[in-house]
Amino acid sequence: MSNPIVGILMGSDSDFEIMKESAKVLKDFGVPFEVVVTSAHRTPERTLEYAKSAKKRGLKVLIVGAGMAAHLAGVIAAKTTIPVIGVPINSSSLNGIDALYSTLQMPSGIPVGTMAIGKAGAKNAALYAIQMLALSDKDLSERLENFRKDFERVVVEREKKVHEKLEKFLNE
Amino acid sequence: MSNPIVGILMGSDSDFEIMKESAKVLKDFGVPFEVVVTSAHRTPERTLEYAKSAKKRGLKVLIVGAGMAAHLAGVIAAKTTIPVIGVPINSSSLNGIDALYSTLQMPSGIPVGTMAIGKAGAKNAALYAIQMLALSDKDLSERLENFRKDFERVVVEREKKVHEKLEKFLNE
Amino acid sequence: MSNPIVGILMGSDSDFEIMKESAKVLKDFGVPFEVVVTSAHRTPERTLEYAKSAKKRGLKVLIVGAGMAAHLAGVIAAKTTIPVIGVPINSSSLNGIDALYSTLQMPSGIPVGTMAIGKAGAKNAALYAIQMLALSDKDLSERLENFRKDFERVVVEREKKVHEKLEKFLNE
Amino acid sequence: MSNPIVGILMGSDSDFEIMKESAKVLKDFGVPFEVVVTSAHRTPERTLEYAKSAKKRGLKVLIVGAGMAAHLAGVIAAKTTIPVIGVPINSSSLNGIDALYSTLQMPSGIPVGTMAIGKAGAKNAALYAIQMLALSDKDLSERLENFRKDFERVVVEREKKVHEKLEKFLNE
Amino acid sequence: MSNPIVGILMGSDSDFEIMKESAKVLKDFGVPFEVVVTSAHRTPERTLEYAKSAKKRGLKVLIVGAGMAAHLAGVIAAKTTIPVIGVPINSSSLNGIDALYSTLQMPSGIPVGTMAIGKAGAKNAALYAIQMLALSDKDLSERLENFRKDFERVVVEREKKVHEKLEKFLNE
Amino acid sequence: MSNPIVGILMGSDSDFEIMKESAKVLKDFGVPFEVVVTSAHRTPERTLEYAKSAKKRGLKVLIVGAGMAAHLAGVIAAKTTIPVIGVPINSSSLNGIDALYSTLQMPSGIPVGTMAIGKAGAKNAALYAIQMLALSDKDLSERLENFRKDFERVVVEREKKVHEKLEKFLNE
Amino acid sequence: MSNPIVGILMGSDSDFEIMKESAKVLKDFGVPFEVVVTSAHRTPERTLEYAKSAKKRGLKVLIVGAGMAAHLAGVIAAKTTIPVIGVPINSSSLNGIDALYSTLQMPSGIPVGTMAIGKAGAKNAALYAIQMLALSDKDLSERLENFRKDFERVVVEREKKVHEKLEKFLNE
Amino acid sequence: MSNPIVGILMGSDSDFEIMKESAKVLKDFGVPFEVVVTSAHRTPERTLEYAKSAKKRGLKVLIVGAGMAAHLAGVIAAKTTIPVIGVPINSSSLNGIDALYSTLQMPSGIPVGTMAIGKAGAKNAALYAIQMLALSDKDLSERLENFRKDFERVVVEREKKVHEKLEKFLNE
Repeated sequence: MSNPIVGILMGSDSDFEIMKESAKVLKDFGVPFEVVVTSAHRTPERTLEYAKSAKKRGLKVLIVGAGMAAHLAGVIAAKTTIPVIGVPINSSSLNGIDALYSTLQMPSGIPVGTMAIGKAGAKNAALYAIQMLALSDKDLSERLENFRKDFERVVVEREKKVHEKLEKFLNE
Repeated sequence: MSNPIVGILMGSDSDFEIMKESAKVLKDFGVPFEVVVTSAHRTPERTLEYAKSAKKRGLKVLIVGAGMAAHLAGVIAAKTTIPVIGVPINSSSLNGIDALYSTLQMPSGIPVGTMAIGKAGAKNAALYAIQMLALSDKDLSERLENFRKDFERVVVEREKKVHEKLEKFLNE
Repeated sequence: MSNPIVGILMGSDSDFEIMKESAKVLKDFGVPFEVVVTSAHRTPERTLEYAKSAKKRGLKVLIVGAGMAAHLAGVIAAKTTIPVIGVPINSSSLNGIDALYSTLQMPSGIPVGTMAIGKAGAKNAALYAIQMLALSDKDLSERLENFRKDFERVVVEREKKVHEKLEKFLNE
Repeated sequence: MSNPIVGILMGSDSDFEIMKESAKVLKDFGVPFEVVVTSAHRTPERTLEYAKSAKKRGLKVLIVGAGMAAHLAGVIAAKTTIPVIGVPINSSSLNGIDALYSTLQMPSGIPVGTMAIGKAGAKNAALYAIQMLALSDKDLSERLENFRKDFERVVVEREKKVHEKLEKFLNE
Repeated sequence: MSNPIVGILMGSDSDFEIMKESAKVLKDFGVPFEVVVTSAHRTPERTLEYAKSAKKRGLKVLIVGAGMAAHLAGVIAAKTTIPVIGVPINSSSLNGIDALYSTLQMPSGIPVGTMAIGKAGAKNAALYAIQMLALSDKDLSERLENFRKDFERVVVEREKKVHEKLEKFLNE
Repeated sequence: MSNPIVGILMGSDSDFEIMKESAKVLKDFGVPFEVVVTSAHRTPERTLEYAKSAKKRGLKVLIVGAGMAAHLAGVIAAKTTIPVIGVPINSSSLNGIDALYSTLQMPSGIPVGTMAIGKAGAKNAALYAIQMLALSDKDLSERLENFRKDFERVVVEREKKVHEKLEKFLNE
Repeated sequence: MSNPIVGILMGSDSDFEIMKESAKVLKDFGVPFEVVVTSAHRTPERTLEYAKSAKKRGLKVLIVGAGMAAHLAGVIAAKTTIPVIGVPINSSSLNGIDALYSTLQMPSGIPVGTMAIGKAGAKNAALYAIQMLALSDKDLSERLENFRKDFERVVVEREKKVHEKLEKFLNE
Repeated sequence: MSNPIVGILMGSDSDFEIMKESAKVLKDFGVPFEVVVTSAHRTPERTLEYAKSAKKRGLKVLIVGAGMAAHLAGVIAAKTTIPVIGVPINSSSLNGIDALYSTLQMPSGIPVGTMAIGKAGAKNAALYAIQMLALSDKDLSERLENFRKDFERVVVEREKKVHEKLEKFLNE
C-alpha cells in the first residue's frame, strides 16, 4: 500500500490470525496501512530501526500485537513519539494475562494504549487509530460517525435472531 | 481554564489523588484541560451529556479514571468518537484488577485505550493524549521530543544516587 | 408474551446460549417475560430508554447477561429502581472473570445482584427473580416451595445412576 | 427492633465492621431489621433453624456477610425461599476472592445475589433488599427514587472539592 | 458393600468421573466404602443426617468431592468429628479455583483436609484416608508401605518409555 | 515433651508466628508434640532423616508449615506413610498462593492434606491431627465433642457484642 | 550418549512431549546430554542420588521439567551446586501456575533459574544451558552467535508469509 | 570495582532496595561486579549499548531487576549471548505478577532465567550467577560448597530460637 499512515506490527506470523482484524477495519475505512513482522527479542535492530524511522516515513499511529512477554509495543513506544496501540495476544497457557501485563504496565514516561485481549482488541485498535487520525481529518471523522449509526440496526437484527431462536428453544 | 482540549474525568473525588497526575503533565506541556467529576452509575445523564457534547465543545481527547466496576470510560466512549483513554484505579480489595478488566475488555466497536493501573497510568494518559494532539501540532510534537531527551540525564543521575547508596550499604 | 414482568437482557445474540436458561425457568414457572438485545456501548440510547421505561411498563425485575467488560447490568441499574440481576458470561480468554468483576464490583448506591458465571447463573437468575416476585405472590411462592421438594428425588435418582456406573467401573 | 422484615447475618463479630453498613442504610430508610451472628460451621443447627423459620417469622429478605470459605449465604439460601443477598468479606490473605467465589458460584437451584466485596457491597445489599421490598411498597419505592435524586447534588459537590484541591496542587 | 468405614460423597452425578478414582484405590486396598450423592444446597437435610450419623454407623473417614461453591465438605465437617477430606472439582469456567477456595479456606474450628483439584486429588484422598486408617491397622499400614515400594519400578519403566520415544523423536 | 505423637515442622523461624497456633491447640488437648525447624532446600538430609524416622519414633501425624515454594510438606510426605498436614504460609508478595499451590497440588501417590492459608490453617491443622488420633482414642474423641459444644456459647456471646456495637453505631 | 554434560530431568513420562524440545536443541548444538525420569515424591532417593552425583559424573547443568506442585527442580537444586534450570509444565487445571510458583518461588540460598511455562520454556532451557556452557567454551559461544544470526532471516520470511496471507484475507 | 564479571542492572533507583541484595552476596563471595541503572523504555540506546558491549568488556553474567512491565531483562538478553538472570520486582498494585510474567514468559530463542519475586530473588540471582561462574572456577566452586555447609548450623540455631519462643508462648 502506498503512503501508509498506520503500521500494524506483530512479533510472529502466528499472531496474524488476530492482527488481520486490524487490517480489515483499516481497509474498510480506506486508511492506508502496512503490515510488518518484527520481534523485540529476535530482531531488536530491525524493531528499533522501524520505530525510529516511523514518524519520518509518514506513519502516524502504530498498532502492535504480541503474545507472552509482549515487549514489542513497549520497545517500539520507547523510540517514537507517535501513539502506539497495544494488542495483547493469548498465545501461552496464561490466557493472555502475560501479554496484557507486559503491554499495559508501562512505567511513567512511555505510554502504550492497550486494547482488549485478542480479536476484539485487534478490531478496536484499528478503530482507535482511526479516532486519532480523525482528530485532524474531517472526512474520516464523518465516516466514523456513520459507522456507529449502523450499530442500532445490527443490534435490532440480532434481537430478531434471538427471538427466533427463543421460540424454537421454548417449543422444543 | 479557557478552551480546554483535554477532559479529565473521574467517578469520585477519592480518585483525585491518582488523576491529579494527568493534570500536572498537561499543565507542564501547556495543554488546556478541564477536570470533571461524574459517575456512570450515580449521574448517568450528566455523564452522557458530557460525552455527547465533548466534541462540539472543542475537546479532542478524554482521560477517564475510575475504580471497581469502572464503567465510566466505556460509557463515555459509547457516546463520542474522540479518543478515550482509561486509567484503572485501585480502590477495592482486588488490586485494581476489577477496574482494569472493566476498562480494558471493551467489545469490538467501542475502544478505550487503557493505561497502567494507578499513578503511572494517570501520568501516561496525559502523555498519550499529548502524543495524539501532537499528530497535528508541530510545536507540541517538538516539546514531546524534548521531554524525552531529558530521560537520559535523569537515569544517569539516578545511577549516581544508586552508586552512593551502594557504597554505604556495602560498607555498613 | 403479553404483560411481561421480567425482562431478560443480553448484549449480543452470542449470549443467547447462556441466557435462554433464564427464559426456560421463567416459562416453567409461568412468569411472563420479554427478551431484549441491547448494548451498553453500541446502543446506549436504546439501553437507557429501556431502563427508564421498565418500571412504568410494568416490569418488576431485570435479568442482564453480558460478557467481557460487562457494563450492561450496571448501566441498566443506574436508571431504574427495580432490582437488576447480573449474569456474567464467559466470552473472552479470561474465563468470565472480566465479566464477573465488571458486573459485581458496583460502587455503593447502585446494586446489581450477581449470579454465578454462565449457565448455572442464568438459571439461578430466573429463580432469584421468582423469589423476589413471590414476596407478594402467594401462588408463586407455593410453586417455588414445590419446586424445591423435587430436589430430594432428583438427588436420590442421581445416586442410583452413580451406583450403577460405579459397579461397572469397579468390575471393568 | 420489632417486626423485622430484613435479617442481617454474619459469621463472626469481626464481620461487624463491614456489615454495620447494611444496618445503617436500612435504618435510614426506616426498614425494620434484626442482626444475627451465626456460623455455617460452628453453629449449623442455629443457622438452619434461623433459615427455616425466617419466612414464618415475617422476614422477607436476608443479607448474609461472611469471609474465607463463606458458606453462610449458600447454607441459608438452601433452607428458605425468600431472597438471600451475599456480601463477601475480605478476611484472609486472598483479598476476599475466596469469600466471593464461595458466595457467588452457587449451583443451579439455589441462587444467592452477590454484592461487591466489603463495605460497598454491604451498603448495596441493604439498598438491594429495599429495591425488592419496594416492589410491593409504594412508599418505600418513592423513598428510593428520592434517595437517587440526591446523587447529582453529591457528585457536583465532589467536583467542587476536586477543583479546589486541583488548584492547590497545581500551584504548589 | 457391608460395613463401610469410608464414605465417598459427591454433590452431583457429574462428579463421578472424578470421584470414581477414590473408589478404585479403596477397592484395591480392600477398604470397605460406600458412595453417596448428596448436596449441601439441594438436599441439606439428607446431608446433615448423613454427617450426624456417620460416626455411629461405623464410618471413620469421609471423602467429599464438589465443584463450584463447594460447600459440601465444610457442611459435612461441621456435623461430625471424624476427619473429612475435600476434593475440589473443576466444573465451572474458573478452573476449579472456586471449588478449591470454598473447600480449603475453612474458619478455625472446623478443618477440611484438602487435596489437589481433580483426579489426582481424588486418588490421593483415598490414599490419605488409608494413611489415617493405617494408624491403628498394622495390616493396612504394611500394604501402604508395599504400595510405595512399587513406585521406583514404575518410574524406571517410564524412563525406558521416554528413552524409546526420545530416540524416535531425535531421529525423525 | 516426652513421647510426642505429633510433629510440628516449619521451614524457618519466621514461620513460628503462624505455627505456634498448632502448638497451642495440641497443648490444650493434652496431645504430646514436638516442634522442629528444618528446610526442604537448606537442610534436605535433616529433613529426610526426620521423615524416615518419624514413624519409628512413635509419631503419628506431622503438621508442616511453609511459605513461598513450600516443598517441605511434600518432601516429608514422600518419605513417610503417616499422614502429613500442610499449612501454607503467606510469606511473599503472592498472598500465600505460591505456598498453597506448592503444598496442595501433589501428584497422585503422595497426599498432603492442606489447610487454609495462615493462622486459621495452623489451628485447624492441630484439630485435624486430633481428629485422626481420636479415631483410635476414645478419650480424645470425647474431648473433641466437648470442644465443639462450646461453639454455640461463643457465637451467642459474639452476637451480644455485635448487638452492643450496633446500638452505639446507630446512635452515633 | 557418552559423557553427557547436561541432564534433562522430568517427573513423569507425560512431561516428555514438552521436555523433548530441550533435547532437540541440545542435539542441534552438539551438546551431549542424558534424559532421566525421576520424581521428587515417588522416588526421592533416586532423585537425591542423581543430584548428589551429578557434578562428580561430569554434568554441568541440569534442566528440570515438572508439573503441578513441581518440587523436582528445587529438590535437585538443594543437593548440587551446578546450575538448575526449571521448566514449569501445564499439567493440571491451573494453567501451569501451580508448577510456575512451585519452581520459581525458591527461598534465598537455593536458586532455580525458571523458564516460561511449556514448550517455549523447554527450548529456552536448553539455550540457557548452552549460554552457561559457552562461558568457557569458545566454539559453543560461536555457534550460539551464529544461531542468533539466523533470526533475522526467519523473521523476514515470516513477514513474507504474513503478506501473502493478508492479500488473500483482504481479497476474500 | 575493577574488571567486573557480573553486571547488576536495574530500571530505576527505587529498585535498589531489592537489588542491593545481589550486590551483597557477590561482594561476600569476592566476585567483582558493577551496578548500572538503565531503562528499556526511557534509555533504550544506553540499554542496548550496554548489552552489546557487555561480553567484550569481560562481563560473564548479567543480573537484571525490574518492576511493572519489566522488559529490561528481555531487551538485554536479546542483545547478548551471556546468561541473563531476571529478578521481578513488586512495584505496582499487582504484587509483582506483572513483572514476573514480563520477565519469565520469553519467546523461544531468547531465555531469561527468572528468580523469585523480590529480595529472595535478588539474593538467589547472585548465587545463581556464582554457580555459573563456578563451572570454570574451582576456587569459587569450593566457596559455594562451603557456603552451603553453613545452612545446617543456621537451621539448628533457628530451631533453638523457636524452642525458646515456644516455651514463652505456651506459658503465657
